[in-house]
Amino acid sequence: MAAKLPEEEHPKQAFGWAARDESGVLSPFNFSRRATGEKDVCFKVLYCGMCHSDLHMVKNEWGTSTYPLVPGHEIVGVVSEVGSKVEKFRVGDKVGVGCIVGSCRSCHNCTSNLENYCAEMILTYGAKNYDGTITYGGYSDIMVADEHFIVRIPDALPLDATAPLLCAGITVYSPLKYYGLDKPGMHVGVVGLGGLGHMAVKFAKGMGVKVTVISTSPSKKQEALGHLGADSFLVSRDQDQMKAAMGTMDGIIDTVSAMHPLLPLIGLLKTNGKLVLVGAPEKPLELAAFPLLMGRKMVGGSGIGGMEETQEMINFAAKHNITADIEVIPIEYANTAMERILKADVRYRFVIDIGNTIKSTH
Amino acid sequence: MAAKLPEEEHPKQAFGWAARDESGVLSPFNFSRRATGEKDVCFKVLYCGMCHSDLHMVKNEWGTSTYPLVPGHEIVGVVSEVGSKVEKFRVGDKVGVGCIVGSCRSCHNCTSNLENYCAEMILTYGAKNYDGTITYGGYSDIMVADEHFIVRIPDALPLDATAPLLCAGITVYSPLKYYGLDKPGMHVGVVGLGGLGHMAVKFAKGMGVKVTVISTSPSKKQEALGHLGADSFLVSRDQDQMKAAMGTMDGIIDTVSAMHPLLPLIGLLKTNGKLVLVGAPEKPLELAAFPLLMGRKMVGGSGIGGMEETQEMINFAAKHNITADIEVIPIEYANTAMERILKADVRYRFVIDIGNTIKSTH
Repeated sequence: MAAKLPEEEHPKQAFGWAARDESGVLSPFNFSRRATGEKDVCFKVLYCGMCHSDLHMVKNEWGTSTYPLVPGHEIVGVVSEVGSKVEKFRVGDKVGVGCIVGSCRSCHNCTSNLENYCAEMILTYGAKNYDGTITYGGYSDIMVADEHFIVRIPDALPLDATAPLLCAGITVYSPLKYYGLDKPGMHVGVVGLGGLGHMAVKFAKGMGVKVTVISTSPSKKQEALGHLGADSFLVSRDQDQMKAAMGTMDGIIDTVSAMHPLLPLIGLLKTNGKLVLVGAPEKPLELAAFPLLMGRKMVGGSGIGGMEETQEMINFAAKHNITADIEVIPIEYANTAMERILKADVRYRFVIDIGNTIKSTH
Repeated sequence: MAAKLPEEEHPKQAFGWAARDESGVLSPFNFSRRATGEKDVCFKVLYCGMCHSDLHMVKNEWGTSTYPLVPGHEIVGVVSEVGSKVEKFRVGDKVGVGCIVGSCRSCHNCTSNLENYCAEMILTYGAKNYDGTITYGGYSDIMVADEHFIVRIPDALPLDATAPLLCAGITVYSPLKYYGLDKPGMHVGVVGLGGLGHMAVKFAKGMGVKVTVISTSPSKKQEALGHLGADSFLVSRDQDQMKAAMGTMDGIIDTVSAMHPLLPLIGLLKTNGKLVLVGAPEKPLELAAFPLLMGRKMVGGSGIGGMEETQEMINFAAKHNITADIEVIPIEYANTAMERILKADVRYRFVIDIGNTIKSTH
C-alpha cells in the first residue's frame, strides 16, 4: 500500500509551514490532523513560539528529522472542539501544548507525573504517533491532542507572551523545583541570557531567590539587572569577578548549549551546590572529579517537565505575572527569524502570530 | 629562629615510620606530639589502615607533600590520657581518628556537621596544624587530637578490621545516605571492587539495598557474589550485559580513581538516578550532557564525612556486623605493602599492627 499524502492521512484539513529538506527553509504546507477523539481536544492555534530546537530540527542537525517537518512546540490557542469523554476543557477555553503530545501512561515515569521521561514519549512534531503517522507542530492553524497533554492558560496571562513558557518556561522551572533551588533567600546563578536564561531569571525571582546572571557578554549587564530584575551580574571571562563569587551559590541553571567549561561554574557553588544543565552541547564536556568531591557538589540535567508540573508552572506564572519577552512576527517572517535565532539576535523569543497570518490555501 | 627538629617541637615523645623524600620509602622516625590539651584525647595506636592515598602522599603525587611524612588516617587504639575538659572519652576507651583532626568549628559547614568540607579543615597527616607544626599520621605509636575529631569504637567491633572504616567506610557510607541511596529495595551499583568498593557493597547491603558490582574483571564475580554478598555482577566491558542492565539502577557509587568512561554508567541509571564519584581521576572525565537531561540524572561527588556521621557509620557497622576485609601486617612490611597496593594486590586493605610491631628507639 502506498503511503498516503499528508493531506489525506486524516479527516481534518490542516495548514501550516513546513521544512522540506535539510536547507530548513519553511514554506506553506497542506496536511491533515486526526478527527477529535473521545479524549481529544482540538484547538485553533493563535500563537506559536520559536524554540532554538526548531532550528536544529528543520536543518536535521540532530539527525532525527523527517520531512516534511512542521516545527513548533510552544503552542497556544482556543478550544474549538472536545471529545465526548474530555473532562477538563470546553470549547472557548484558552489552552496550550508544549513539547509532548503522548506517552505510554503506564510506566513508572508516567505514573509519577514524569511523562517527559517516558521512553515512549511522543514529541509534538517530527515523531511517530500512536497510529504510525508523523506528528506536526504548531506552525499550523489547528492542533489536536489528548486532553492529558493540554495545558490550561489562565485568563490573566496574555496568550502570545505565554506561548514560550510551554517549553522555555517549564525547562527552567522544573529543575529549580526538583533540585531544591526554589527556597527564598537562596542564591542561584543563571548562565546564558537567551530564551531559557531570561525565563530562569524571572522564575527564580518569582520564587524569592537571589539571582546572579553569568554571561560572557558584559553588554548584557544592564539588561539583566535593569530589565529582567536580576540581583547581580558576573562576566564569566573576568577572573577577578569569578574569583570573588566563588563558593556563593546554592545552584546554577546552565542554559548554554555551546561547548563551555564547567569548572569555573562548579567553583561558584557552595558545599552541596548543584549545577544543572538544561542545554545540551553536542560534544561531551570536561568534568573534573576532585572539585565535586571537595564540596559534595553535583552536575545534573533536566529536560522540560511533566504535564502536572507544566500546569503548575503556568499557574505560578499567572500568579507572579511572569511571561516571556517576545517579538511577535508573521509566519512569512519565520525564515528570517530562524537566521536571527542562529545569531542569537532576539530578545528573547520570536512568537509567530499564527491566528492572523497563517492563511489556509484550502 | 631555626626550626625545631620534629622530636623537639612538642613535649610528648613519639615514634613512627616516615617517608623522607619522593621515593616514598618509609623508615623509622622519631618525632613528638603535643601535650594533651584540655579538650584533647591521647591514645596508644594499635592498628592503622593503609589507604591508597597514603601511597600518593608518600610519593608526593599530588604535589602537596612535605617531608618527613608520617602517613595513616585509619587509626584506632586505646585512650591513655584525656584533658581536663574532655567529656566524651575516658582512659581505656577504644577510639579512632580518621582523615581529619581539625576544622574551624564556626563556618556554615562546621556548624552543619560537615567539618569535612570546611575550608580550614586540618588533615590528619602532612597538613599544617593550628600551631604551625606539621601533622603526623597513624603509622606511629601515639596520637593526640581534640575529642571532637575522635570516634568511639564499640566493643562489638574488632579494632583491626574497623580501622579502614574511618576512611574507606565513611567515604562510601556518607554518599549512600546523602544521595538517598539507602532505602531498602533500591538498586545500587558499585564500580570497582577495592578498598572503597568492598565497603560500599557491605554498607549498601546493610541498608537493605540490592547491590550490583560493576567491574572490568570477570574474575571478581565469585568474590563479589559469594564472598561479599552482592546480588549481581556486571562486566563493564561486556556490551550485552551492560545493555541488559540499562535503566535499572537508582544510583551508583563509583570508586574508581583511574580514567574511565561515565557514559555507560549513566546509562545504567533510572530516571532521577545518581552517579556518585568518590574516587578522583587525575584528569577531567568526559560528561555528555544529553543523557543527563533525558533522565534528570546527576553526577555528584562526595568526600569522606563529618564527625557526627562518622560516628553514626561506626555505630551502623557495629549493629550490622560490618568490617573491612583486611590483611594485618607488621610495620616492617609497609614498603612491600605499598608496592602491592600499587598493583591492587590486596583484599582489600592492609592494616598495620602498630601495637605489636612499632618499636620506639627512645
